[in-house]
Parts: sequence; C-alpha cells; structure tokens
Amino acid sequence: MPLQKHVSLNLNVRGLGQSPTLAINERVKLLQSQGNKIYNFGLGQSPFPVPVPVVEALRLHAHEKEYLPVKGLNNLKEAVAGFHRQKDLVDANAGCVLVGPGSKELMFLLQLVFYGEMIVPTPCWVSYVPQAQVLGKRVSLLHTSFEDKWHISANRLSELLEGEKDLYRPRLLVLNYPGNPDGLTYTANELKEIADVAREYEIILLSDEIYGQLHHKGGHVSVARFYPEGTIISSGLSKWCGAGGWRLGTFTFPSSLDWLMEAMAAVASETYTSVSSPIQYAAVEAFRGSMAIERYLWHARRILSTLGQKCYRILADAGVRIHPPEGAFYMFPDFSPFAEKLAAKNIKSSSRLCEQLLQDTGIAMLPGSVFERPGEELTARISYINFAGAQSLAASETIAMHHELTEEFIKAYCGETIEATQMLADWLTG
Amino acid sequence: MPLQKHVSLNLNVRGLGQSPTLAINERVKLLQSQGNKIYNFGLGQSPFPVPVPVVEALRLHAHEKEYLPVKGLNNLKEAVAGFHRQKDLVDANAGCVLVGPGSKELMFLLQLVFYGEMIVPTPCWVSYVPQAQVLGKRVSLLHTSFEDKWHISANRLSELLEGEKDLYRPRLLVLNYPGNPDGLTYTANELKEIADVAREYEIILLSDEIYGQLHHKGGHVSVARFYPEGTIISSGLSKWCGAGGWRLGTFTFPSSLDWLMEAMAAVASETYTSVSSPIQYAAVEAFRGSMAIERYLWHARRILSTLGQKCYRILADAGVRIHPPEGAFYMFPDFSPFAEKLAAKNIKSSSRLCEQLLQDTGIAMLPGSVFERPGEELTARISYINFAGAQSLAASETIAMHHELTEEFIKAYCGETIEATQMLADWLTG
Repeated sequence: MPLQKHVSLNLNVRGLGQSPTLAINERVKLLQSQGNKIYNFGLGQSPFPVPVPVVEALRLHAHEKEYLPVKGLNNLKEAVAGFHRQKDLVDANAGCVLVGPGSKELMFLLQLVFYGEMIVPTPCWVSYVPQAQVLGKRVSLLHTSFEDKWHISANRLSELLEGEKDLYRPRLLVLNYPGNPDGLTYTANELKEIADVAREYEIILLSDEIYGQLHHKGGHVSVARFYPEGTIISSGLSKWCGAGGWRLGTFTFPSSLDWLMEAMAAVASETYTSVSSPIQYAAVEAFRGSMAIERYLWHARRILSTLGQKCYRILADAGVRIHPPEGAFYMFPDFSPFAEKLAAKNIKSSSRLCEQLLQDTGIAMLPGSVFERPGEELTARISYINFAGAQSLAASETIAMHHELTEEFIKAYCGETIEATQMLADWLTG
Repeated sequence: MPLQKHVSLNLNVRGLGQSPTLAINERVKLLQSQGNKIYNFGLGQSPFPVPVPVVEALRLHAHEKEYLPVKGLNNLKEAVAGFHRQKDLVDANAGCVLVGPGSKELMFLLQLVFYGEMIVPTPCWVSYVPQAQVLGKRVSLLHTSFEDKWHISANRLSELLEGEKDLYRPRLLVLNYPGNPDGLTYTANELKEIADVAREYEIILLSDEIYGQLHHKGGHVSVARFYPEGTIISSGLSKWCGAGGWRLGTFTFPSSLDWLMEAMAAVASETYTSVSSPIQYAAVEAFRGSMAIERYLWHARRILSTLGQKCYRILADAGVRIHPPEGAFYMFPDFSPFAEKLAAKNIKSSSRLCEQLLQDTGIAMLPGSVFERPGEELTARISYINFAGAQSLAASETIAMHHELTEEFIKAYCGETIEATQMLADWLTG
C-alpha cells in the first residue's frame, strides 16, 4: 500500500475527529455490544417516535424520485413559513425559507458564505467551532457563567461592541434557546433587550430555535418578534418531531438577508443538491401541524418537564450547582462543589470526569469542554433521554391533562433515567 | 431594510449561480408553467421510477428515526461492498464504504479534505470546477477532443506528467464512464493502460461509475480492477436506481486511502451528520440486488440503448458530428459542421446556440461551456430522458428478451424524444 505514505490532507481537517455527540453514541453502542451496561446521557436525540401522521406521509410519498428545487419543495417552504407565522408570530413566506439536510449543514453553509465575525456565547452547541476550523475561520467565543444562567445579556453584548474600534465589522451572533447544552431559555424581555442592541449595531442574529417547541411550558418566544429584519430562525424536524435521523433542517430569513440565502442556495446546488424528496413531502405534514401533532407535543413536554424537574431535584439535593430545566432535554450541571473530592481522584478536568464516570458507573455524558468551556471547569451535559419514548407518550395520553404526572409514572416509564441520575449523585457524594 | 446595505459574502461564492443542471430544470418548469411547450433535454435525471422493491423497503422503514453512524448504516455499507465485489470484481468490504447525501456532496468533501491537484478531463461533469471555486482551489482541466471520443489516453496522461518537474505533487485524476456529458465509455484495455500510468506516478483515481449499471450492453468494467490500491469508486442510487431525488451516494475506498475516508467522515460529522435513515434502509434493498432489480436494469438498458441509437442516427444523418452512445442517457454532439450557418444567425458560442434553440423550438439542452469546454466550441449535452419511463419499462417487459425493440415501440413510448431530436436536426439544416 504505497499510497499510504502520501497522506496529503488539508491542514484544517488534519486531526479533526468525529463530532463528539456522534462519537459518544458510537462509543456507547460499542460498549453495549461488548456486554457493558451503559446509561446513555450522551446523545442529543429525542426519545420520542416520529408522530404517526408524519410517518404515514413518508409511506405515502415513498415513490417520489425527482430532484426537488434546491431551496426546497414549495409546499414545504409554505408550511415552514406558516409554522413560524403561527408559532412565533413573525412575518414569513415561502420565499424566505431554505430547507437543508439538517440545520447543522445549513450552519456550515452559513459559515462558508458569510464573510464576517461569528460571535457564539458558551456553553455552545458542539459544531460551531469545528465547522469554523474546517473552513479556516475563527469564531469569537463569549463565555457566560452559571450565575447568569449561561446566558448573555444585552449589557454584556453592548459592552463588548462598545469596546471595539471596528464599528463596520460584519457580525453574526448565535442565540440558541431553549439551549443545547443547558436546557434553559431567555425571557421575552431579555430577548427584546438583546434585539435592541443587535439593531443598534446592525448585527445579524442566527436564532437557533430547534428546541422551541420543546419549551417545557409551551411558552417559546422567538427573538425574531423583536428584530424581524435581522433574525434568521433555524429549525427542523430533528428535535420536536423526533426525526433526527431523517435529516431535515430549515432556515427562515428576513427579506433583507436574501443575499445570504441566495449564496447558501448556490453552494447547496453544488454540494447536497436538495433534501431527499420523500422526506420533504413527509415534512410538509409535520410543519403544517394538526391536532394529532399538538397532542404529541403537549405530552412530550409534560413528560420532559416532569422528568427534568425530578432529575434536577436529585442533583441539586446532592449539592450540584444546577438550574431547573426549562426546555429541551438537557441539563448542564456544574460539579465544582465536589472539586476537592474529585481532585483527590485525580479528576481535574471535565473530560477526565466524564471518562472516570463512564468507567466507574457506565454513565455516558459529554464534558463541558466539547461545548467550548474551559477544560478545567467541572461541567458536563446530561441528556435525559434514555427512556422509552413511545411507551411513555402512550401512557401519558391516558392521564388527564389537568393532572400532573406522578412519581410512579416517572419511575415506571423513565426509571433508568432516574436510576442513572441517582447513581451520578451517589458517585459524587459517596 | 438597512442590513441589505451590508452584503458581506465570501468572495469565493459571490456571483456563484445555481448549478446549471438544476437551474435548467427550474427554468424549464417555469417556462412550462407559463404555457410553453418545452422539450427538456436539460436535466440528467433517470426517466425510470425507483424499482418497486426499493420503494417498498422505504415504506417498511418509514418509522426509522435514529441518527445513523456517520459513514453509513452497517448493512448498507455491506451491501455496497457486495455490489462492487459482484459487479466490478473488486475486493471491497463494509469498512471501505462511505455513504453520503449524493455523490456530489462526497466529491465536495473530497475536494475539501484532499490537499493536492485535481486533474479533470473535459468535457466533465458540471460541479467539479464550481466546487473548487467555492473552496478557493484550482482544478487542472485536461481538454480532450471529439476525435478521441472525449477520452484521455494513457499516453496523453503520461506525457503530461513526464513534462512536469514536480514528481512528488499529490494528484487525483477523475474518470467518469459511462460519461456525463458524453454517454461514452472506456474499453477494459484503455483503462488498464491508464491504470498503469496512474500506478507509476502514484496518482489517486476517482472513478465516477454512477452510470456503470447503465452501460447499454451491461458490460461496464471498473478501472479498480486494474488499480485496486489507488482507486476510489463513486456510485449511488441516483442514476441506475432512478432515485436522484432521494440523495444517496457512495464512495468505496481501497484500504490504502483510509486516511482520505476518515478525514471525509470527520467533516461529514460536522456538516450533514449522516444520510437520512429511512433512505439508507431502503438503499440496502437496492444495493443487495435481486432478480426484480436485474430485470429492471435489463429493460432500462434495452430502452436507453435503442432510443440512443435512434437519436444518434437522426443527428448523424443530418450532418452533426456525434458518436453512437454507449451508456447512460447522454450524447455530446458537436455542431461545428453548421458553424457558418449558425454564425449567420449570430450564434458563435455554445451558450448562444442553446439559448436560441430554446427560443426557436422549446428544446432545452445544456451548452458545452458548462462542461468546461471552450465557450466558442459548438457542443452541447442532450439528455434523452423526456419520455415516460414507467410505461416504457412495463411495455418492454412484454417483449421477449431476444427481440429488439422496434421503431414502433420507440415511437409509441419515446415519441417526444424522437420528435425533439428531429426538430433539432431540422433547426440545424433548415
């Protein structure tokens, strides 16, 4: 194999590993196949099945074979625009929508085409920085703190921009709420204040609202309401519709940013071409919505909310610094109260903490470092999704909407999640 | 909309239009919706439906929602490796296969990760050069000629490399056969000679064999047989399986090039993540193959071969310089015998020729220039696919395999294709 001598790779990709969320999933599967009992708090995948009407729509359209328009099937773009008009009270139409094979791919295209600074508050989603690295770009990280609920404030943003000399620099700020990895969200008022600063400095906002419909109280508010002319809303089927593996994401642009959309579509036409056509036809059903889908969402929220509060309570009672979750299926605990105890076991970084926890208990979670937090900070992401989504949904359907889900319900349907959370607490305190 | 003032785009993508094959399709649809009669020789899409067992497999797996491994579902990678072992007599296993959302996306990733020169014989597929432009790279084009059947020869390649001073430059040569846009293929002997030169200079071959199963006589031979250690085979569902809109392509690597595959997979994990999971499950059925799929292919080939020869004959008789097609559903005629006549109509470039033809007759085809031929060369690509694929397949099934398809058959099922070809001949000679 003489060619092996000639490894000749773009330096921007040399040594780039697999995305951590995917890598942890493949590692968990390997460990499980070797007979180990693993509690997977690693992957950010919805535990719930794809709603039945959406699966049926895929069956109905399984024969569709045509290359669809690069930006997406027209009916789908209309449904997505309608979804944001109805759910987020923004003015959107089909011409504002770009459909891609996952919002991750769309973010990559955005980074590729936008010539400007990308500002990302941390902890942040795992792929912004690696994407920038692949493209030889730089991302400006803005570290937030536990005390600030891992949020940036309008003041903080304003200070940052005031302090800079370059008022003409093109900038794009990423906001993700309910947030991955923190499971927390912004209030309408916080968003309004951020919007005002963004407008003042003419900063584009990329508002990643893929968990919007999984706000635990159904109270998601989009920053686009306060800054429609400068906000791109990112959404998709992966989280609220349980269809991560289907790979369909959407960006919805204001008309003032059509130059960004057109450039992204041009690159799309030279790369992925268009999203798989049967999947697009099925997604129309999802974005159009129906009573069946609203019920599905309502029950999914009730389960996630109840389970999240329960897990939060176990960890908070054990002494972990943690905020009660508000959306999605994540928590981002800070284990610093156990720093001395952990240091005695030679655990002085989040990656070491996660590795030792996996070895000692079989609990897999992702260290704060992959979310761009400082390596020595003892934080990690818990995805509380290792329970039987379909069964718990079906069971929740039998419980009246004005009742809360009981402790017994959670134990019966999400027992392993509770068990693993308790094991984590015991590992820390024991 | 003040943000519109601040168009801030990567210079590599400014002015990049939509990929020509997709753009012509969207233009044709627009013209048709305005009530114009259009003969679409523009899009490179199989006229045949997805085989029934493959559509059924998609229905069966419509509920699959999990994120699949970045490189692909294991059963699918095994099926793809088996497909190439059986069809191309190469040694391949599941570990050599990378599945992506179309082979176009995989080629983009290849260009992104490979640090070396890409040599592309022209006429070539439309996306190599724009992809390189997006990435700020350069592609070395190697122009071939009508006389050489639009092929490069081992001698030509050898001369090029001998003449260069840089023997250590990492290089990758793209071969595409049966070819888009020419519909022609290489003989086993030609491939063997090219393989010998590639081995001598340690050049990687990207062998784009997406039309392999549409060799009109079923006689496709892969260059990987002669240079297994240096050849990447590109394939996918789009052409032989009629599923262009499904977006599933595959690269099969020799183990000596695993460093390329791993780097591509790392970038994939930060961009498209993995291919849509229901589509991957269905693709297992396609790549595993069956008697039903072999029959489908056999009839598809008989129809394409008969129709291709007929269209060729009409154009050759009219005086067009053209080779009889050998595979796929393309021809790449050279209209230079009509140069004077066309010049009198102020047609002195392939793009002008195609534009005027569309205006005069409603025939849409793509000019040679988009396949990287010199603009003044009077060439164009004809995709002879504007006929009812499902009906013609069903009709061919009723005609014994030892019979040829008659002129009546072609007129009955592919009448519009013949009609448009005749119109083209008349437009040239009239």
